[in-house]
Amino acid sequence: MTIPAALAALAPLLGERLSRSKSDLDLHSRSETHYAPVPPDAAAYPETTEEVAAIVAICAEHSCPVIGWGTGTALEGHALAFNGGVTVDFSRMDAVLEVQPENMIARVQPGVTREALNLHLRDTGLFFPVDPGANASLGGMAATRASGTTAVRYGTMKDNVAGLEVVLADGRVIRTGGASKKSSAGYDLTALMVGSEGTLGLMTELTLRLQGQPEAISAAICAFPSMQDAVAAVTDTMQMGVPMSRIEFLDAATVRAFNAYAGETMPEVPHLMLEFHGSASQVAEQAETFGDIAADHGGKGFRWSSKPEDRTALWAMRHNGYYAILQSKPGHRALVTDICVPMSELASAVDAAQRDIAASSITGPILGHVGDGNFHAILMVATDADLSEAHRLSDQMVRRALAVGGTATGEHGVGVGKLDYMAAEHGAGWDVMGEIKRALDPKNILNPGKVVRLNG
Amino acid sequence: MTIPAALAALAPLLGERLSRSKSDLDLHSRSETHYAPVPPDAAAYPETTEEVAAIVAICAEHSCPVIGWGTGTALEGHALAFNGGVTVDFSRMDAVLEVQPENMIARVQPGVTREALNLHLRDTGLFFPVDPGANASLGGMAATRASGTTAVRYGTMKDNVAGLEVVLADGRVIRTGGASKKSSAGYDLTALMVGSEGTLGLMTELTLRLQGQPEAISAAICAFPSMQDAVAAVTDTMQMGVPMSRIEFLDAATVRAFNAYAGETMPEVPHLMLEFHGSASQVAEQAETFGDIAADHGGKGFRWSSKPEDRTALWAMRHNGYYAILQSKPGHRALVTDICVPMSELASAVDAAQRDIAASSITGPILGHVGDGNFHAILMVATDADLSEAHRLSDQMVRRALAVGGTATGEHGVGVGKLDYMAAEHGAGWDVMGEIKRALDPKNILNPGKVVRLNG
Repeated sequence: MTIPAALAALAPLLGERLSRSKSDLDLHSRSETHYAPVPPDAAAYPETTEEVAAIVAICAEHSCPVIGWGTGTALEGHALAFNGGVTVDFSRMDAVLEVQPENMIARVQPGVTREALNLHLRDTGLFFPVDPGANASLGGMAATRASGTTAVRYGTMKDNVAGLEVVLADGRVIRTGGASKKSSAGYDLTALMVGSEGTLGLMTELTLRLQGQPEAISAAICAFPSMQDAVAAVTDTMQMGVPMSRIEFLDAATVRAFNAYAGETMPEVPHLMLEFHGSASQVAEQAETFGDIAADHGGKGFRWSSKPEDRTALWAMRHNGYYAILQSKPGHRALVTDICVPMSELASAVDAAQRDIAASSITGPILGHVGDGNFHAILMVATDADLSEAHRLSDQMVRRALAVGGTATGEHGVGVGKLDYMAAEHGAGWDVMGEIKRALDPKNILNPGKVVRLNG
Repeated sequence: MTIPAALAALAPLLGERLSRSKSDLDLHSRSETHYAPVPPDAAAYPETTEEVAAIVAICAEHSCPVIGWGTGTALEGHALAFNGGVTVDFSRMDAVLEVQPENMIARVQPGVTREALNLHLRDTGLFFPVDPGANASLGGMAATRASGTTAVRYGTMKDNVAGLEVVLADGRVIRTGGASKKSSAGYDLTALMVGSEGTLGLMTELTLRLQGQPEAISAAICAFPSMQDAVAAVTDTMQMGVPMSRIEFLDAATVRAFNAYAGETMPEVPHLMLEFHGSASQVAEQAETFGDIAADHGGKGFRWSSKPEDRTALWAMRHNGYYAILQSKPGHRALVTDICVPMSELASAVDAAQRDIAASSITGPILGHVGDGNFHAILMVATDADLSEAHRLSDQMVRRALAVGGTATGEHGVGVGKLDYMAAEHGAGWDVMGEIKRALDPKNILNPGKVVRLNG
């Protein structure tokens, strides 16, 4: 038995910070989605990089799986210990180590959440822009290459992680990237680690790019006769170079759920919600420019404001959309799809998804990041039959996305939930990912069974 | 002999497109910088991906080095055949394959130059923003992770390559990334290949992100008492969220060279030149905002315009700077340094470089991309003693950059010129680069001796 030997060797290192209590194992067995609980053999709570390196070195010696854990908000089973082993919980590595305002970067430990970082930054005039919705840990967000509503303006974690400290599968510690804005010095190990879901290394420190807090923010809302019209308005606006900071799409079913949830009477047609960041005059001009373009595409009820209280009211439907959908079907859980397609394919992808859902036995309102071509169907399931139907619908969406040059996952990651699509999406490129994994983790101890499949 | 066997096998595949003529070998032996000519054994001119794959497969069979070649503008000896072998010249793979305006991408072959692409795009309302100065091939720019004057706004090749087709060291062809704006589907092979300088694969197709041509452009110029003041003005402007599209620094020596070259009488003090892209009102507001900030930092002679002819006049010193410097020392060549440091370290890095150069036996005006922390000293050399002095100065700059968290190369790449600094810059991370190289190119045939050093 290799795992017990690893645990025996870890115990003196970590003391009571190596836990096998039922509550700790339960906590780390759970996912926010439909996966049945899968407990690890133990949970470790390191406090330093050196401890993480020692944990991994011991686990390597005993071929014991090591799985990183942030806040447990991953949606595709990323952090579940399907092969047992030790879950490394980064909750005690939650310090903002340094903010360098001149360089517009922050160095943080992986357990810092994005909200905690932005709270820390509130008096600096800077903020960290990536916003996946959940108050996830920044280590987890980097590991899954997360993004969210602001990616259209500020990019994803790929664009906002400037450097990393990483513990490799043999316990070596490397530093990648740094505080310089750019470099051509060799292979981009930062980018290789971001999105590797803990299969190539465990991040123990992140250097993150910050943005200046905008002087002014305007928010806008507009109804459209169809998704096609909404997408056309967004495409035209982007091609005019108008920098939108958020552009969110809500379908009629989402509006219906929101009306029921909030006692509102919004027209039950597709809506776009937008946000612009800049100077007061810029955000006014940008909102009005969008309003003009929207009108050309049949937009109705366009409203905008730069006053905080009005902005919150205009965006209420988006902020409450997910909860409104969950409450619309008491006793149900959600299976959330995550395809992303080229912008030219977005309207037809949403249209096809809506038709499939309408023809199915379950419901699934759609919302998404229309500036990125990424959308989520919130497929509502209560029974095994519902779950099976949701998987069938999700499978249809993914296959259609891949057929038009899209991806199975725009921002949630592979985990185990999207593993079956990687060969179709990447072809021989998936083999190359496996070759890299084998080179850097020959014993396959780092989050085994995720992202890649190794033969032998 | 392995190389002759490879050439014998390649001849029937390529016919006269495998050349061993003196003129072809001479062409591919030369660098724009100080390296002595190093001819390959042959130059191949493939016309299709399949031919590139066949070339690499044959070379792999015979352990023959394969070196990619774009336009020959690399500065660090990247494309020189120090181990002999076959140079694969992509000049016949120069087609713009497809422009997708809705997705704001173009698919191009690697031999397309950036100017050729922008000429192709001129009626689309779109452009490709990365501008390294030289009219380099897009394949070469991706291979070296090039950037240039617009990186402060639009990013480097890292940010602007959305996908690739790559021939691997065993002749397999993979496709990475694609037309979707984002993806969390596994390791970022696109980012791994960008900047790998032909050591992990040969790019045979690139999918590039395009930008909307700005409605208006304004240009500005301002003199500053010191580099410190200029950097402080830039930092304040960035933190206010004002999007500058170009911010170039010229030191007093560059202004002096320009005055002599152009018969001008600009004040011989540090200058900044800026460009803003946006709507007419935005670029006016942005230029004026910068002017106000510059005045707070001792800026003098601030002028701006959005009229094309005035913009060209305002930027004449930057456009002609390099040539003015070269003409200031007839009979001299240039060794161009390329360090990049965190913004907080830029002023002192420039200051230290200027002092070292002033105390040396050679001259070296400095210009650079002040928004990125990247600058170039144009070290003028005529004799071996000058070259040795230039290397000593360059070495001092690099060591100082590394000591403050900077990089040996902001945008030119490693080639062989920066190889000796990689261990100091990356520590164990350089070993990891070597492990990836060994996994993907076990025979070390792809541009051997560049970026990484393999032991055995």
